[in-house]
Amino acid sequence: MKTRLLSQDMIKSLITMKDVVDVVEKTYHGMGEGTVINPAKVNLDLGETAEYPPYKGFMNAMPAFIGFEDIAGLKWAGGNLGMRPLMDLPYVSALLMLVDAPTLQFIGVMDSAHITNLRTGAQSAVASCYLTKKRNITLGLYGAGMQGHTQTMAFAERFTLNKVVVYDVFPAASEKYKADCAHLVKDGNIVIAKTPEEVCKDADIIVCVTQSKDKYVKDEWIKPGQILFPMGSYQECEDKFIKNADKIIVDHIEQCMHRGALSGLYEKGELKESDVYATIGEVVANKKSVVPVEESHERILCLPIGTGSMDVAVGGIVLERAKEKGVGGEYEFV
Amino acid sequence: MKTRLLSQDMIKSLITMKDVVDVVEKTYHGMGEGTVINPAKVNLDLGETAEYPPYKGFMNAMPAFIGFEDIAGLKWAGGNLGMRPLMDLPYVSALLMLVDAPTLQFIGVMDSAHITNLRTGAQSAVASCYLTKKRNITLGLYGAGMQGHTQTMAFAERFTLNKVVVYDVFPAASEKYKADCAHLVKDGNIVIAKTPEEVCKDADIIVCVTQSKDKYVKDEWIKPGQILFPMGSYQECEDKFIKNADKIIVDHIEQCMHRGALSGLYEKGELKESDVYATIGEVVANKKSVVPVEESHERILCLPIGTGSMDVAVGGIVLERAKEKGVGGEYEFV
Repeated sequence: MKTRLLSQDMIKSLITMKDVVDVVEKTYHGMGEGTVINPAKVNLDLGETAEYPPYKGFMNAMPAFIGFEDIAGLKWAGGNLGMRPLMDLPYVSALLMLVDAPTLQFIGVMDSAHITNLRTGAQSAVASCYLTKKRNITLGLYGAGMQGHTQTMAFAERFTLNKVVVYDVFPAASEKYKADCAHLVKDGNIVIAKTPEEVCKDADIIVCVTQSKDKYVKDEWIKPGQILFPMGSYQECEDKFIKNADKIIVDHIEQCMHRGALSGLYEKGELKESDVYATIGEVVANKKSVVPVEESHERILCLPIGTGSMDVAVGGIVLERAKEKGVGGEYEFV
Repeated sequence: MKTRLLSQDMIKSLITMKDVVDVVEKTYHGMGEGTVINPAKVNLDLGETAEYPPYKGFMNAMPAFIGFEDIAGLKWAGGNLGMRPLMDLPYVSALLMLVDAPTLQFIGVMDSAHITNLRTGAQSAVASCYLTKKRNITLGLYGAGMQGHTQTMAFAERFTLNKVVVYDVFPAASEKYKADCAHLVKDGNIVIAKTPEEVCKDADIIVCVTQSKDKYVKDEWIKPGQILFPMGSYQECEDKFIKNADKIIVDHIEQCMHRGALSGLYEKGELKESDVYATIGEVVANKKSVVPVEESHERILCLPIGTGSMDVAVGGIVLERAKEKGVGGEYEFV
C-alpha cells in the first residue's frame, strides 16, 4: 500500500483558515463527546530544560484518534532556540503521520509546521465563540509574529474585528503585522500600543502569543467580561490573575498542568486539576455551560495549549483534499 | 532539505542481525550511562482494552534521543487483532521518523516493522550476555512464529546454540520453525516439545514470544540458574514466579510497570518499582553488578519489553548505510 506524502507548499494550496476553524470546532466537540481520543503528549527534552543534550530544544509526540474521520495520527513536533535560529530555520519543526484507524495502514506523512500554525490560531477563535455572544469585537494582541498573524486570520473567520490593539517588544514587528493584517480588520483599524497595558484597555478578548518569560499581563489590567488567552509556552500573566480569574478553561487538563501558564503554580501545589472549571470540549459539546462573559461579567482565563487531535484532524482534511485533487507524492514503505 | 525515505525491502538489504545486536548493546550501554534518553512510551488505545473505537488495536508513540548517533527519533507502532489478520496483514504496523538532534531537521522516514522484529530478538540475546558467562547454551522457546525466528537469529550471533527446545500451540508452526532455523543451531538440533513443561527442562535461557493470555510458565518449572524472558504483551508466567524470582531486571522501569508481565501485579499493588533489581542498561554499563547465574544459582526474570531507543538507534544505522550506498527515495516536506 502506498503512503501519500505532502509538502508544506502543497498543504498551503489545499487548505484555508476557514477549513481549519471548522475542523477545530468539530474536534473540540468530539473531545467533549469522547469520540476524539487524545492522550497527553510525551516530551523528549533536548536541552530545553535538561542539561543533556545541550540543544536548547524539545520534541513532543502527540497522538490522537479522530472519530469523525476514522483516522489516527501522530504529530511529532518541536522547536529550538539553538541551531535553528542560527541557521535561519523557523522555530517549529513538525511531521504528521496518519493511519487508517481500523487497519493501521499508513495513509499519509506530511509536513505539519503550517498546520500547527493555522490550528493554533483557530483554537482560541473557536473557543471564544462559546464564551461570548458578541460577534463584533476589539482584539488585544501581545506578539505580532507568525502566531499574531494566524490568530488574527482565525478570529476574522468568526468575528468582525472592529479594532485590534497590538503590542510587540520589536516595533518593526508590529508595523509589519499592521501592514499584513489590515485587510482582516474593519477599516484597517490596527493600533500599535505604546505600552503593554494599553492592549487590555478596550479589548473584549486578549491573546498572548509571545516567547516572553515575564509574567507581563497584570491582574488589575483584566476587567470583568474580558477573556485572556495566554497561548505561549511560558506563563505570560501574573500568578495573581490565575488565582483570581472567575473561570479557568483548558483544552486538555493533564497537559495544561505540565506546560504553559498553569504549570508553575501546579508544580508549587498552589493550583489543582479541580481548579479547572471545564475543558473547551465540554463547553463546545454543551456538557458544561458558560454564561457569555458580557452577561456574567466574569474574567475568564482560557488555555488552548494545543492537542495532537487538532493537527491530526486538520491533516485528515488535507489528505482527503490531496486525494481528490491528485496532489502529493506516493511511497511504498511496507 | 530533503528527507530520505526507506521501504522495508531496502532496510532488509541494508542491515543484518549482527548489526542490530551490536547497536542494541551500545544502546543499552547509553541508557545505563544516561547518553540515551528514552521517555516512557505513550499509548493510543484503539480498542485493545478500550471500548471505543472498537478496532482491537493500539498505537504506541516511542520517542528517543541517541547520544552516540546524535539523532532523535520516534517510532509510531501498533498492531491489531481486528482487520489486520482479516486482511492478511502482519500484526505490526510501524513507521520511524528521525531528526538531526541539533537542528531538528527530518532526515529520515522509514518502515519500522522489520526493525522492530530484529531489535526485539536482539534485546534478549544481548541482555543474556551479561547474565551468564556461558556461550554454549540450550535455548527454550515458547512461540515458533516470526519472533521465535528473530530470537533464534539473535542468540546465534552471540551464543553457540547446542540445542533449541521449542513449543507452539500450532504444531505446523514448530515444524516450519525447525526447517527455517536448523542452520542456526549446532547439528540442527531443534527439538519440538510435546508439552510446555519440556521447554524448561534443560534450557539455560527460556524465551516466551507468544500471544497467549495464559500464564503458562509455572514457577516450579524454572530451576536455579535459569533466566526467563517473557517478551509478549501478556504475562506468560505465573504470578508465583514473579514473586519468587531472585532478581527482576527490566529495560525501562516505568514502561514495565504498565505493560507486559509485571503490569498485573503492579496494578494490584503486589509489586513495586523498587522490586526491580536493575535495568539492563545499568547492568551493561556496569552500574549494577550481576553474578553469572551459573555461579549465583539465582532464577532471573528479565523483561526487555521494548524501548523506542532501540528502534531509533537501529534506524540511525540504516539511514547511514542508505546514504553511503545511495539507497532510498527523497522527499522535500518543508
